[in-house]
Amino acid sequence: MTSENRPFHIGMLGCGTVGSAFAELIDERASEVERLTGRRPLVSGVLTRSRGDAAEIIAGADLVVEVMGGVDPTRDHVLAALRAGKPVVTANKQLLSRHGPELWEAARAGGAQLRFEAAVAGVVPVIRVLSESLAGAHVDRVRGIVNGTTNFILTQMAATGASYEEALKEAQDLGYAEADPTEDVGGGDAAAKMAVLARLAFGVWVHLDEVTYEGIEHLTADDMAYARQFGLALKLLGTAERVGDGIAVGVHPAFLYAGHPLASISGPFNAVTIESPAITEVTLSGPGAGGPQTASAILGDVVSAIVGDRSPAGGDAVAATIVRDVASAFYLCLEVADRPGVLAQVAERLGLQGVSVRSVVQEGLGDTARLVIVTHPVSESKFYAALELISALDFMRAAPRAIRVIDEIFET
Amino acid sequence: MTSENRPFHIGMLGCGTVGSAFAELIDERASEVERLTGRRPLVSGVLTRSRGDAAEIIAGADLVVEVMGGVDPTRDHVLAALRAGKPVVTANKQLLSRHGPELWEAARAGGAQLRFEAAVAGVVPVIRVLSESLAGAHVDRVRGIVNGTTNFILTQMAATGASYEEALKEAQDLGYAEADPTEDVGGGDAAAKMAVLARLAFGVWVHLDEVTYEGIEHLTADDMAYARQFGLALKLLGTAERVGDGIAVGVHPAFLYAGHPLASISGPFNAVTIESPAITEVTLSGPGAGGPQTASAILGDVVSAIVGDRSPAGGDAVAATIVRDVASAFYLCLEVADRPGVLAQVAERLGLQGVSVRSVVQEGLGDTARLVIVTHPVSESKFYAALELISALDFMRAAPRAIRVIDEIFET
Repeated sequence: MTSENRPFHIGMLGCGTVGSAFAELIDERASEVERLTGRRPLVSGVLTRSRGDAAEIIAGADLVVEVMGGVDPTRDHVLAALRAGKPVVTANKQLLSRHGPELWEAARAGGAQLRFEAAVAGVVPVIRVLSESLAGAHVDRVRGIVNGTTNFILTQMAATGASYEEALKEAQDLGYAEADPTEDVGGGDAAAKMAVLARLAFGVWVHLDEVTYEGIEHLTADDMAYARQFGLALKLLGTAERVGDGIAVGVHPAFLYAGHPLASISGPFNAVTIESPAITEVTLSGPGAGGPQTASAILGDVVSAIVGDRSPAGGDAVAATIVRDVASAFYLCLEVADRPGVLAQVAERLGLQGVSVRSVVQEGLGDTARLVIVTHPVSESKFYAALELISALDFMRAAPRAIRVIDEIFET
Repeated sequence: MTSENRPFHIGMLGCGTVGSAFAELIDERASEVERLTGRRPLVSGVLTRSRGDAAEIIAGADLVVEVMGGVDPTRDHVLAALRAGKPVVTANKQLLSRHGPELWEAARAGGAQLRFEAAVAGVVPVIRVLSESLAGAHVDRVRGIVNGTTNFILTQMAATGASYEEALKEAQDLGYAEADPTEDVGGGDAAAKMAVLARLAFGVWVHLDEVTYEGIEHLTADDMAYARQFGLALKLLGTAERVGDGIAVGVHPAFLYAGHPLASISGPFNAVTIESPAITEVTLSGPGAGGPQTASAILGDVVSAIVGDRSPAGGDAVAATIVRDVASAFYLCLEVADRPGVLAQVAERLGLQGVSVRSVVQEGLGDTARLVIVTHPVSESKFYAALELISALDFMRAAPRAIRVIDEIFET
């Protein structure tokens, strides 16, 4: 028996939906992995809530697959494995976006790899593409639809005219949304993923707390109707971009023009567009996280770890200078009393903050009216300052609704 | 000076458009590559038509970048480099699709890496995704728009109603097509790329000669009008798929339904969809080959080679059992004399070969008529046998036009 023929022992931390799918997949594909790598993978231990000892499983493994989720006690197990020199493959975006520096420090100390393709966008290989294929490129911006639940809900609202509540209910019935959907619909899940992507795209640390985000709960059928009328797609969009010497990372609903590569991504799919002057842009799309997809992403990482690939993602990272006030164009929908001078007063408040109007549509609705304004790009702080002034006007009949508008791939 | 700080010497074979773009890029990104890998890249020699000695350049290099193209004498240089243990990064799809086994054998003998991300789809990282991310997945089919020239021409024809000749002229004026466009518009370029993709997707050798292909020269504005009428996209589509125990690889014009991930790829872009039961499908898209894009793909490979990643693409491959007679649905356009019995006679010839009709439209055009028939999936040999019978009918006014129709991602 040569050393190439030794089995490769995999210790699993956790065995829920993803864990079971991975255990099944590794069984099914063991011969193919052996053909590719010379080592036959074998699950040597599994930690569940009720069974197994983490230290023992780690000690007996050549590599640790972490699919238990959460931060505590997961973090301790992963740190222990890395410090012991065991490569770790994880799908845990919360852990990565909250404790990244500590994890990489442990990986460096132990001389072990940390791989996490499955943490973002399921089987869509954005981690590998950013950290390897585009390692030598100067990336300016990464945009993504990185939460399948919200994209399913928005696709249903757009296709059927359903309200947010109706579409959420449907997503829950189909298993695309959890009973408590807050983490998905509030944007927190996407925010953690964007923090991880920013790390790879720009070589800087971004903590989850530094990501500004909002969710889709306040979006209405009227917003969708507006999108349809103007050929736009309304998406929950994550953005990580260079702004001057800093980095801005955020998650917001946004209107996309029809030609944007992310505009046509529908249902529970994920997609990421990577923009760089030398290459214009590359877009990757596929099904979002699901047991089999995530398991497949984990297996890709395991194969790379067995053959000993050293991902450049292990390169040094520095703390990011976070920019919170970035420029964007906005759609602004105002429910107002239908009386003379309304438009003039709104326009004056916008002008006071330097917000320039690109288009305006006023619709009469009996005694009331609706103003739909699209601005040119402006810094968010100025826009929101104008919004506060407008909110205080006595003819406003509801809180204003503002949604970002994304135009070209390379905007100014 | 530690060993990490030694410069990493790159010998370049060739220095045309791609070579110059690469030399510029490596200069611009040297510090970033050093940050990621610990080694500073440095071009140590360049072979041009008039200058330089290949053996000397190879001997003085840590890695060889081959951007001279062609098979002779390129093949000898690449074999020499690999046998001498020098990793080779190449963009040469002709070389790979004609001499693959020999190249890998040399790489194995020399213990050297052979990397070729830039050979297919420019900066779209399909090679890496197939050979690494999806290394553990069972891939059933790869479909791609892998030639930007033809996609530009077809996009223009669809958008403007231009004829093939007009759109080709425009592509030439804009620099998207060569003065002699045969290799692109005839499908040969795409065929070489699909042979390379089949190698990675299925672990088998496919020689360029084993790829069946046709080009876009015979497509007409009428075909485009039909596509528009039924919401279809007409694309030059490469397909590599498992059929029973064999592999079929081909390049053909095809109508795609609007929901297909490749239907919305326009202009000089490339895109590849990888289908696997476990993951449904992943689609990668971006600009096709161009100097800067190809250079960026080469740099990604160089970075991986410096850090010592071992691509599983180096795994053993076997000779493919090539299947040439695969099933497909067809669109069939017949210019006929407008007289009784025409449809019955056509239908009879189709029926004789077991070709089942899905839809038929007959348009009267004065004395003549046009029959547009879409079939259910049928083996190509049967379809073309029926076509031969139909061609012999005395009311046929022109050669029949047949184009494949692609329906679902997972067809039967």
